[in-house]
Amino acid sequence: MSISESLSCSVSFQSAIPVEQIRYNEQGLVPAIVQDYLDGTVLMMAWMNRESLQKTLETGQTWFWSRSRSELWHKGATSGHVQQVQSIRYDCDSDALLVTVKQIGDIACHTGERSCFHQVEGTIQAPPADTLSQVYTVICDRRDHPNLESYTCKLLAGGDNKILKKIGEESAEVVMAFKDDDKEAIANEVADLLYHTLVALAAHQVDIKAVYRRLQDRRR
Amino acid sequence: MSISESLSCSVSFQSAIPVEQIRYNEQGLVPAIVQDYLDGTVLMMAWMNRESLQKTLETGQTWFWSRSRSELWHKGATSGHVQQVQSIRYDCDSDALLVTVKQIGDIACHTGERSCFHQVEGTIQAPPADTLSQVYTVICDRRDHPNLESYTCKLLAGGDNKILKKIGEESAEVVMAFKDDDKEAIANEVADLLYHTLVALAAHQVDIKAVYRRLQDRRR
Repeated sequence: MSISESLSCSVSFQSAIPVEQIRYNEQGLVPAIVQDYLDGTVLMMAWMNRESLQKTLETGQTWFWSRSRSELWHKGATSGHVQQVQSIRYDCDSDALLVTVKQIGDIACHTGERSCFHQVEGTIQAPPADTLSQVYTVICDRRDHPNLESYTCKLLAGGDNKILKKIGEESAEVVMAFKDDDKEAIANEVADLLYHTLVALAAHQVDIKAVYRRLQDRRR
Repeated sequence: MSISESLSCSVSFQSAIPVEQIRYNEQGLVPAIVQDYLDGTVLMMAWMNRESLQKTLETGQTWFWSRSRSELWHKGATSGHVQQVQSIRYDCDSDALLVTVKQIGDIACHTGERSCFHQVEGTIQAPPADTLSQVYTVICDRRDHPNLESYTCKLLAGGDNKILKKIGEESAEVVMAFKDDDKEAIANEVADLLYHTLVALAAHQVDIKAVYRRLQDRRR
């Protein structure tokens, strides 16, 4: 983040959050949910006090209060995995914060995993994100652990010419559904087009997050 | 949710969360982050105790502990806006829960808004979600508040023939970028195709979440 970006961010954050109106608990703390700005993954939940919230607003990076060490904690100061704040909000009761971040290194958890919510029944599983990212994760798993019964695996085995032909077909079907203004067909055909595009991305090892980054960059 | 779905859910949730191993705070509570299963939007944060967590696992709907009323609280019991649990996880410290839900009525907040994190500087703004949903929200805003300088507004003003022609062009460019295996071009062209598809969806008043629902339904 350049200095000018950091400054412009901190100005807008400052006005967005009235630090004195947040309802801190008996220990002077408020829970802060940290969410990835690209795909909505919840990366972690930690605690802020007035001072760490103020430092977060001033620096554009997340600061928390460590309850175990009883000290301010600049997330990523040791590991380099800092979090660049993209937005910050409080809820209808003013007693919880929601912070969206660009996670440097794509690792938020001290275990080295992307998210602190990374395990299910003792095995590592990608945490919930938006639907496209979930489908992309399943397709990559099929790519890496082929299963002959799976339509996705058959497509991947057919290579570019089979996958890309489907993109051509599905985009034509999308156009026809829109021309018919058939809302059921539109949702179905767009879902088909997105699914086949995700298969092509997985085949070419291009992460859906690279696409999201392009879309976010254009919004600025 | 049918009875069989509800039963099969509760069995898998039960084994996923060891209720006795969760680290509750001094009041016997653990924070629960509630996230929409389609687009990753954080809908609310509330508190569970052992009993409400157990009831959530048993019923497949969210139950919390109301700190203000000191009683168990079945979310949506009065309003009908219950939350059907899709997945539930705990974090690396076992002291926070992440629950993904299908939000009935698409309203989680007592104010009638979708999310409790709905305002920024006093005005209602859609809370953070995945990138496609964010871009879709911006496009709908352009559609509803036209601005002659905006490329999106010009496209929308051109109607189907202008928008759908772009889908044809962009899908051809996507195919070429994949054939070249040019990862930069792939990310750019897929971003272009997605953007123009979102414009067509907005023009036809089809919510991106309808597309997400189709993709989720096919995963089952």
